[in-house]
Amino acid sequence: MKNCFSIQDYVAMHRALEEAKKAFSLGEVPIGAVLTKEGQIIARAFNAMEEKQDPTAHAELLCIQKGAEKMGSWRLLDTILYTTLEPCVMCGGAILLSRLKKVIWAAPDIRHGSHGSWVNLFEKKHPTHSLEIIGGLCQEEAAHLMRFFFKKQRRKKENLNLTITFT
Amino acid sequence: MKNCFSIQDYVAMHRALEEAKKAFSLGEVPIGAVLTKEGQIIARAFNAMEEKQDPTAHAELLCIQKGAEKMGSWRLLDTILYTTLEPCVMCGGAILLSRLKKVIWAAPDIRHGSHGSWVNLFEKKHPTHSLEIIGGLCQEEAAHLMRFFFKKQRRKKENLNLTITFT
Repeated sequence: MKNCFSIQDYVAMHRALEEAKKAFSLGEVPIGAVLTKEGQIIARAFNAMEEKQDPTAHAELLCIQKGAEKMGSWRLLDTILYTTLEPCVMCGGAILLSRLKKVIWAAPDIRHGSHGSWVNLFEKKHPTHSLEIIGGLCQEEAAHLMRFFFKKQRRKKENLNLTITFT
Repeated sequence: MKNCFSIQDYVAMHRALEEAKKAFSLGEVPIGAVLTKEGQIIARAFNAMEEKQDPTAHAELLCIQKGAEKMGSWRLLDTILYTTLEPCVMCGGAILLSRLKKVIWAAPDIRHGSHGSWVNLFEKKHPTHSLEIIGGLCQEEAAHLMRFFFKKQRRKKENLNLTITFT
């Protein structure tokens, strides 16, 4: 699997992981994404659903929106999206609409993933676009970050319950 | 089929059709959406992909974003989304994420629809949400608007080709 990825892929995914860490520090589920064109990062974003109270504020969707703004076009031709989690169905749909060239994701989203985990949007021929999509780059780092986040959340909840019990 | 819908449903879908006509007048594919809560419209939007040059600027997604802003929450509980076209996969995903109570759409999107036309996201159990979704309300009006738009677009293109030929 590792041989599929280039040094540029690793560098870009590490930038996406940095975005995920920003989300973590703000108490958001730690997911990050970057968009590259000709090897350069043109947009980056992290999950901001809680901060924005917007159900669509996923890292991938925000990154696509920023990329379109940067390129001045909704057609993100010749771009690669790196995301730390297998995209959900909403983000998978946005990926197909925006004419991306390629998507690389890190850890699977076993509950909501649109690349085989919940459904597979990419195995069926889409009427207007086809692209390459591959998972597993820096999987362990991304999955570790998610596990650590949810462990912390559970502890916070347990402590809150304890506080309520003793007051 | 008609007996499934209430007067309130017809009124709301007509508001969505008004939104679609606004899109039409701006040269956008004519799709509109409104979101209601307790029978009141709390958000409305039309497709603005070309104006914004944003691949995610579909009527349904914009309407969900506006609804969340209005409610101050990403959980759009007890709301109904009316849209003039069967949602695409991106919008279908956003619908599932935002905890809507119900979706009513007008005309099928035979190429991209996520409620049976291209795929069916709503027949498989979703891990976090289930909702009611039904199509066909004011189908003829919505489909007519779409046909008229694409006919006009083709004529514009033909006239442009003629101009190029004669100059």
